[in-house]
Amino acid sequence: MGSVEKQRIAELRKLLKEAGVDYYIVPTADYHNSEYVNDYFKMREFLSGFTGSAGTLVVGSKEAGLWTDGRYFVQAESELEGSDIVLYKMAEENVPTIKEYLQKNVTEGQTVGFDGRVVDAFFGKELEEAFAGKNVTIAYDKDIAAQLWQDRPAMPVSKVWGVSGESCGMSVAEKLSKVREKMAEEGAAHLLISKLDDIMWLYNIRANDVECNPVALSYTFISKDKAVLFIQSGALTEETKEYLEENSVIYEDYGHITEYLKDCDIKGKVWCSGSDISYMLYKLVQSRAELIDKNNPTELMKAVKNPVELEHIRECYLKDSVALTKFLFWMKENAGKIPMDELSAAEKIDSMRAEISGFLDLSFPTISAYKSNAAMAHYSATKEHFSKIEADGFYLVDSGGQYEGGTTDVTRTIVLGDITDEMKLHFTKVACAMLRLADAKFLHGCTGRNLDIVAREPLWECGLDYKHGTGHGIGYILNVHEGPHSLRWQYKPEIPETKLEEGMIVSDEPGMYVQDSHGIRTENIVEIVKEDKNEYGQFMGFRHLTYVPIDLDAIDPQYMEPSDIRRLNAYHKMVYEKLSPYFAGEQLVQLKDATRAV
Amino acid sequence: MGSVEKQRIAELRKLLKEAGVDYYIVPTADYHNSEYVNDYFKMREFLSGFTGSAGTLVVGSKEAGLWTDGRYFVQAESELEGSDIVLYKMAEENVPTIKEYLQKNVTEGQTVGFDGRVVDAFFGKELEEAFAGKNVTIAYDKDIAAQLWQDRPAMPVSKVWGVSGESCGMSVAEKLSKVREKMAEEGAAHLLISKLDDIMWLYNIRANDVECNPVALSYTFISKDKAVLFIQSGALTEETKEYLEENSVIYEDYGHITEYLKDCDIKGKVWCSGSDISYMLYKLVQSRAELIDKNNPTELMKAVKNPVELEHIRECYLKDSVALTKFLFWMKENAGKIPMDELSAAEKIDSMRAEISGFLDLSFPTISAYKSNAAMAHYSATKEHFSKIEADGFYLVDSGGQYEGGTTDVTRTIVLGDITDEMKLHFTKVACAMLRLADAKFLHGCTGRNLDIVAREPLWECGLDYKHGTGHGIGYILNVHEGPHSLRWQYKPEIPETKLEEGMIVSDEPGMYVQDSHGIRTENIVEIVKEDKNEYGQFMGFRHLTYVPIDLDAIDPQYMEPSDIRRLNAYHKMVYEKLSPYFAGEQLVQLKDATRAV
Repeated sequence: MGSVEKQRIAELRKLLKEAGVDYYIVPTADYHNSEYVNDYFKMREFLSGFTGSAGTLVVGSKEAGLWTDGRYFVQAESELEGSDIVLYKMAEENVPTIKEYLQKNVTEGQTVGFDGRVVDAFFGKELEEAFAGKNVTIAYDKDIAAQLWQDRPAMPVSKVWGVSGESCGMSVAEKLSKVREKMAEEGAAHLLISKLDDIMWLYNIRANDVECNPVALSYTFISKDKAVLFIQSGALTEETKEYLEENSVIYEDYGHITEYLKDCDIKGKVWCSGSDISYMLYKLVQSRAELIDKNNPTELMKAVKNPVELEHIRECYLKDSVALTKFLFWMKENAGKIPMDELSAAEKIDSMRAEISGFLDLSFPTISAYKSNAAMAHYSATKEHFSKIEADGFYLVDSGGQYEGGTTDVTRTIVLGDITDEMKLHFTKVACAMLRLADAKFLHGCTGRNLDIVAREPLWECGLDYKHGTGHGIGYILNVHEGPHSLRWQYKPEIPETKLEEGMIVSDEPGMYVQDSHGIRTENIVEIVKEDKNEYGQFMGFRHLTYVPIDLDAIDPQYMEPSDIRRLNAYHKMVYEKLSPYFAGEQLVQLKDATRAV
Repeated sequence: MGSVEKQRIAELRKLLKEAGVDYYIVPTADYHNSEYVNDYFKMREFLSGFTGSAGTLVVGSKEAGLWTDGRYFVQAESELEGSDIVLYKMAEENVPTIKEYLQKNVTEGQTVGFDGRVVDAFFGKELEEAFAGKNVTIAYDKDIAAQLWQDRPAMPVSKVWGVSGESCGMSVAEKLSKVREKMAEEGAAHLLISKLDDIMWLYNIRANDVECNPVALSYTFISKDKAVLFIQSGALTEETKEYLEENSVIYEDYGHITEYLKDCDIKGKVWCSGSDISYMLYKLVQSRAELIDKNNPTELMKAVKNPVELEHIRECYLKDSVALTKFLFWMKENAGKIPMDELSAAEKIDSMRAEISGFLDLSFPTISAYKSNAAMAHYSATKEHFSKIEADGFYLVDSGGQYEGGTTDVTRTIVLGDITDEMKLHFTKVACAMLRLADAKFLHGCTGRNLDIVAREPLWECGLDYKHGTGHGIGYILNVHEGPHSLRWQYKPEIPETKLEEGMIVSDEPGMYVQDSHGIRTENIVEIVKEDKNEYGQFMGFRHLTYVPIDLDAIDPQYMEPSDIRRLNAYHKMVYEKLSPYFAGEQLVQLKDATRAV
């Protein structure tokens, strides 16, 4: 294992030597810094053999290193075996960041290189800073590794389709007008957006260029009186062209963006977000105009769902909850009785979702994890590595769908057989954590950093924690992870925080993971609502969108406050009320039992 | 009322006209942006008649306005009566900030003036920004109002005394060496400190130039091999001079700072903190060198108490707690039986503190507030306005002392007679809030913004809130309010947050205020400690420094979770254990009863 990759790294070193590059950086990104990338962009995986969704490879003449985060340590260790690539565990004590590593190793006169299209401007500028005053060259104009990848998949080109304004609750014209208002406020003459889901949201279009993310590779350049969409010509049907023309959106070929930005008439400051635009485009725009480097105005607009979207989302989450609940009942009944494994279980829930009206796609590959496999928070079973499921321990399923009415995401952990007292403690604390946060009342002005501890405290007080955020935003028929808001506790002064607003939706997903033993995560999606306004200010709260029972077989009331028990019972009462119209006979009896008061 | 001030504003307007100044700003500050100022600096009070500790006067040719915050609205309204000065209630809806007010009113060609020594650089730069590109002059070189104030108090000059290195736990040499390490890290050749408590901390000296704040008016300018202290010559005794010489600290006259900064040899960047240095000095340094505008390195060092300081602090808080508890018992026993009022009650606790060994001064003027007066969070009874105390309702006392072993701060609210169910609800929730926060366990890396909600949630869930922060740092024989850490929830991206570190001490003081009815605050000071370290990280917690009973007469267990009751009982058990050695006879019986389990 690892010998193919060893060979590839060796060949890359030859090419680097020819190109005069001493350190070469290969991130996991497309030209838009998307979270998930199409196979065409999986160069880091091709070179290193590491298949995780996040990681950066740095190849020097003596050492090659791979940086990835806590979700992937176990997987990366195993996949890098034999490749001679050193694993750098991000955020662990005494592990340098890539910037620190390069600062330490790169010497005067050397060159650091990368493909400037797949490195975001934020990181590029960090490198500039790191080497400021040092005689180090940053070469970003070539995809040096490209020629090594003979059977590279083709660039994706899916057909673009328009979502009706009726389904989106806002027309393209309205959205463009709001965007232009923000541009005026910031004093920007132009806005260059590279973030794919922002572009889809703005023009009420969708596509399938990235697995599970209904987006098309695209850019847009907006001026006061002109909106240009750069998109692959193969992506446009006659219908879509008509649709764009109706909305006064000019379309140009995706590949023309560079030429366009070089030649177009620039009349003032250009707004573009350094955290998603590529370093190459950033440098190009910077050479022509003064930049405003701030998050795209579309990001916050997209995050605050409008009433039409919310109505669809609520309905869509209910249908999704019905399917997942039926699947979980089936699992509890059949585990140990009929042969099943992680893959067949995932297929089962995926096919149940596919039968829901308005189903388009999964919103991410289903995480179906049995027993100790679930201890890896982002485990994915493969045809080569998967576990059989028996009538024992916990089973975790994290899954969701893309529907005509929204994007879902939900995690439940269920008991299939014997579990220990410790497992019950962990499960109960995680359930309390999820429900406490969903029940929190807070003043308008709070951000996710204020609220995260409400979920985390039940675990922290036991000296436990989960090494991931508590929550993320979710798109509307769009990416399952979206910003700008989130629920996390770490202080990162460089990342502006976003106040939680009415109409945002966010995941509430505490967990607990014990290596080689078990993994628990309980994830609901909640909607942010206004509560009472009084002399103290505008109070805000959450409302559940997910209605799926929490397995009472793992709940031990001795670990709960009376208010936790009240919350659990109130939630289960709602679950019964919402789901029971979709259940009958034996299944209805099961639902009644699964949502009984404790 | 107000006619004297009306006259003064009119005279000031004449002087402004002569000086060619259209708007004149008079803040509440000394040359060091100190929170509390000596009488010499109370120009804003002299001109406006408003005696509150915070507020800024702006005098234009047509209107004079006073800006102050929520603590002082009632007081300012009453004190400004008849003066024609308009009250601007800061942070209320539709009330402009001073910057916004000036931006709106100042026209091209006009001049905005202030005494550049009493306006901090942060605000001065804000004004520069506000008028950027506009033909507006900022005149900051004259104290125009000075000649109006005939009987102005003299500049304070108290004698400086050295705290022994033994009592401080760290020598001047050690502190200077740590400061120089930080300077090297930041690439600063020089460090100019204007913050008085930072200077006192650095040189292990104290004085009495500001009421309750043991500081001397001073500056310091530190280079690699030289540390110069600017201090009034009258402040130095032969002993202090010797002490400074022993520590290789050069002393210069306080008034020489400007000349010195104009002429001294500057060898690189100068570090100074724009939020406490005066605009005048800032501009002066800026004209000579590149600036590093960051908080003084001394601020964080001072906040993290060393083991010697902590040992003294713990002892000092215990003695202080004994005195306050005895006072509270006396109040409960005698209210309604013997004549007393807010002033006599304050005198009583002040005199009890004065008897404690090592007592130096109060750490702030005692807040002694009966019934509805306590609804003003910063109420202070005066000889003109005070209430009699009867056997009814709540009495709130917020007080503290300066001792040779530390600086204390503590608030208790006690029941003197009948209280309503609502008052019991509020009191119980505030007690739960204080105790929950003190009991919180959290991962290292948290800042006050992560934790604030732990205290606030019991109130927020009832739709209640207190309009002040939950906690502030406290000095060691220094200012009762110090940074850089704090416990608050509001997001202010321009204010960097500080991680909570082992050895910091912080107040934990939730409250509840109902206008015209009652005010409740329960304030303990807690020390930040390390708890277990495991695979999830370094857990941190708090340990109480304050041991004073929480009045059980206002506790209603129906509003508490079982864990709240456990916490209260555990705290009272500790209070009894800590205090009982200092109690005997009837008082010991009282203590036993006041700390009984509920």
